[in-house]
Amino acid sequence: MGLKNQVLPELTTIVGKANVLTRREDLIPYSFDGTAALKQLPGCVVFASSTDEIAAILKLANQSKIAVVTRGSGTGLSGGSLPSRDCIVLCTVKMDSILEVDEKNLTLLAEPGVTTLNIFNAAEKVGLFYPPDPGSMKVSTIGGNVAENSGGLRGLKYGVTRNYVMGMEVVLPQGEVMWMGNKCVKDVAGYSLKDLFVGSEGTLGVITKILLRLIPKPAAKKTMVATFDEMDRAAEAVSAIIAAKIIPCTLEFLDRTTIHCVEDFAKIGLPLECEALLLMETDGHPAVVAEEASEMERICKELGCRELWVAKTAAEGVKLASARRTAFSALARMAPTTILEDATVPRSELATMIRFVNQVAKRYKLKIGTFGHMGDGNLHPTFLTDERKKGEIHRVEKAFKEIFDEAIRLGGTITGEHGVGLAKKSFLPAFVGKTQMNVLRDVRRSLDPKGILNPGKIFDWEESSIV
Amino acid sequence: MGLKNQVLPELTTIVGKANVLTRREDLIPYSFDGTAALKQLPGCVVFASSTDEIAAILKLANQSKIAVVTRGSGTGLSGGSLPSRDCIVLCTVKMDSILEVDEKNLTLLAEPGVTTLNIFNAAEKVGLFYPPDPGSMKVSTIGGNVAENSGGLRGLKYGVTRNYVMGMEVVLPQGEVMWMGNKCVKDVAGYSLKDLFVGSEGTLGVITKILLRLIPKPAAKKTMVATFDEMDRAAEAVSAIIAAKIIPCTLEFLDRTTIHCVEDFAKIGLPLECEALLLMETDGHPAVVAEEASEMERICKELGCRELWVAKTAAEGVKLASARRTAFSALARMAPTTILEDATVPRSELATMIRFVNQVAKRYKLKIGTFGHMGDGNLHPTFLTDERKKGEIHRVEKAFKEIFDEAIRLGGTITGEHGVGLAKKSFLPAFVGKTQMNVLRDVRRSLDPKGILNPGKIFDWEESSIV
Repeated sequence: MGLKNQVLPELTTIVGKANVLTRREDLIPYSFDGTAALKQLPGCVVFASSTDEIAAILKLANQSKIAVVTRGSGTGLSGGSLPSRDCIVLCTVKMDSILEVDEKNLTLLAEPGVTTLNIFNAAEKVGLFYPPDPGSMKVSTIGGNVAENSGGLRGLKYGVTRNYVMGMEVVLPQGEVMWMGNKCVKDVAGYSLKDLFVGSEGTLGVITKILLRLIPKPAAKKTMVATFDEMDRAAEAVSAIIAAKIIPCTLEFLDRTTIHCVEDFAKIGLPLECEALLLMETDGHPAVVAEEASEMERICKELGCRELWVAKTAAEGVKLASARRTAFSALARMAPTTILEDATVPRSELATMIRFVNQVAKRYKLKIGTFGHMGDGNLHPTFLTDERKKGEIHRVEKAFKEIFDEAIRLGGTITGEHGVGLAKKSFLPAFVGKTQMNVLRDVRRSLDPKGILNPGKIFDWEESSIV
Repeated sequence: MGLKNQVLPELTTIVGKANVLTRREDLIPYSFDGTAALKQLPGCVVFASSTDEIAAILKLANQSKIAVVTRGSGTGLSGGSLPSRDCIVLCTVKMDSILEVDEKNLTLLAEPGVTTLNIFNAAEKVGLFYPPDPGSMKVSTIGGNVAENSGGLRGLKYGVTRNYVMGMEVVLPQGEVMWMGNKCVKDVAGYSLKDLFVGSEGTLGVITKILLRLIPKPAAKKTMVATFDEMDRAAEAVSAIIAAKIIPCTLEFLDRTTIHCVEDFAKIGLPLECEALLLMETDGHPAVVAEEASEMERICKELGCRELWVAKTAAEGVKLASARRTAFSALARMAPTTILEDATVPRSELATMIRFVNQVAKRYKLKIGTFGHMGDGNLHPTFLTDERKKGEIHRVEKAFKEIFDEAIRLGGTITGEHGVGLAKKSFLPAFVGKTQMNVLRDVRRSLDPKGILNPGKIFDWEESSIV
């Protein structure tokens, strides 16, 4: 194989023999990420342990015109870290140190391979709070979160990963090291390049250090669950809560299919006779929490919710929240292939969008479970299917096309938090239009003229020049 | 003049005769912005009233290789909207409509010429809140705020302009119109180009529509002022407040010189026998406000503040806050030339930085008043000088160089909220380094290959190709 002859000895010199995988059986675990039905064997996998090593790897790859696909834990849901053929998979999981927690400036400096949960825990240890909580936070890495601008359940009140990135070190495609940002709350010196790198899905550089903003930990929290006989009533409740000027930290929903799967999986004791379940959490000052919780309770009851539980203890709250947190795993058990999507609309269009998703599923005779971040307008319609059934998969694809067209028509986006990657690439041009596609390509080309980083992702890219 | 012969008739066709200024006396008011000692007559001033007109103007300018400098009200403090010689000044103040307030999605859509105050008022009318409040908000335009990523007094708790931009329409240098973003709380489809445009100081495109995020209006607010005999004690109070996990909406300070100037100007009844004054505001739920205010009071007293007032009414609060809001105007009365700077350091380095600024002023025999956003680490050392005194101005320049070098050494930035423009251009290379300068230039070049938009700002740019 070309790759091996060309650069393997040099890669081995850079990171050491133990940190280069080339045998087929070793490569297989790195041939996919969290996205169903996408697989591709890389040429090799390299584990880096420092910025210098990554700089040397990129320099080598650039000179040799070999594609590099950066990867953390590989939990991505858009195929963003799927290898391209014969590429170098650059894995950052061994760079897993938290380098500093600065309590005076409320910042945390980490290497890219630290898991999101470890970031959260390190902050909590000193009474601080790192809010972004993607579903995969127990295993996902902060580097991957930043590259994908990951969301989570607390996005409505606390924002997404981007809102917590104050600075970062990246290695550019040619191997140069660049630091952006600092511990200042305000900084307007030059274009905000760090914001360009957040969410760039590994196509502009490799993130090697991340400076995060932390916030004071909310003093109190209250969790509650309400069930509804109609999805529209649940959506109305969400609108009424926002209209009452309440921004809960969590405002999630599960539809009937998802509720049944979760109950079957986690035995939480969820009521099965309802069409929609809302998970609501408010946090902050105890007085605010008490007021917001009782106001949300009032709104749900006024809109005719079927049942309503308020967690009496923190443990009970965690149990209720786990209904939502296990939704994906629960659905994934139900079918050989689970295709989780990520359609997002303005909050005001939520009910319309949910109805549309259900109509489409019916029309294409597909089984679908929908859950997601209702406060954000961020839906995760999940098709329960089987990739071996060609005809059904074809119908799934058609259904998705319709769902995304409708999301765009309603002023929404093709991806709220999972990224474009390979999975959404074909939807992007219609969504952003020709002018923006050109700008995206121009920006990419200006940073990575040879297109060695994560080629073929986000948008089309002439790949002739790379291996 | 070249400009007139070349394109004036065409510009007149695009916007109408009444919207093109060419006479010297008409151009003079557009030959400077809020930055002292920078002046340059443009070739003409054009008032646009629509996206289509701006697209036609840029197409024409690009074909003719004529520089275009976009301008709102011209309140900028880094020379960012200073004309280049013979350029077209493209003024957006006539595009001043608020196009939509969407209460369901908490958004506001505005043209670029709307003043910040009118945005704030339109939000308040429906019980919502637009937090960014740059000092010039009564006259500054939202287009300018977005182009400069303006800060303000509420930045500590609520962030800066960037945090409220959900989308925008821009005209690219070649005249193409591009829309970025939407009303979705989350959107990760492609690079965040809107974040690239926020703070790009008119060098990447002309902003023609802005979609802003609004938030629920805080229910209560409390304003208080404390004075200290030593600046260090005031800085310690700020650190202690943050350490107590309080993030006040405002945490501002004035030094002795500024206090005296403000009192002389505004007759608020400020105590003159102190070295530092802290203005503190907390807002939100009444219970939180009460607790945070009493905690801040306790901290200030414990650290030996000289006096402390808590506003009893909203009107009294506004009066106390006006001490800070009038600081710049008050200082500006004291000397023929007031050079307001914008050095920012991590919060933990504030006291060190303030001491350094005072030492430098003493060493160079300069009169300086310092005020600013203490919670943000964002200082505004203001030299009271006279641009006609060559020797003194030379010392001011030397002093600034030392101040910025120290800010960088302490992990700070050369500009927290005013932008680079022309005034800070010479400091940028040392601050961001060669690699980042190259990336900044590459990004600019990829969007504006001929460099017609605001040439010579932020970073050096070969201007040979433009008039």
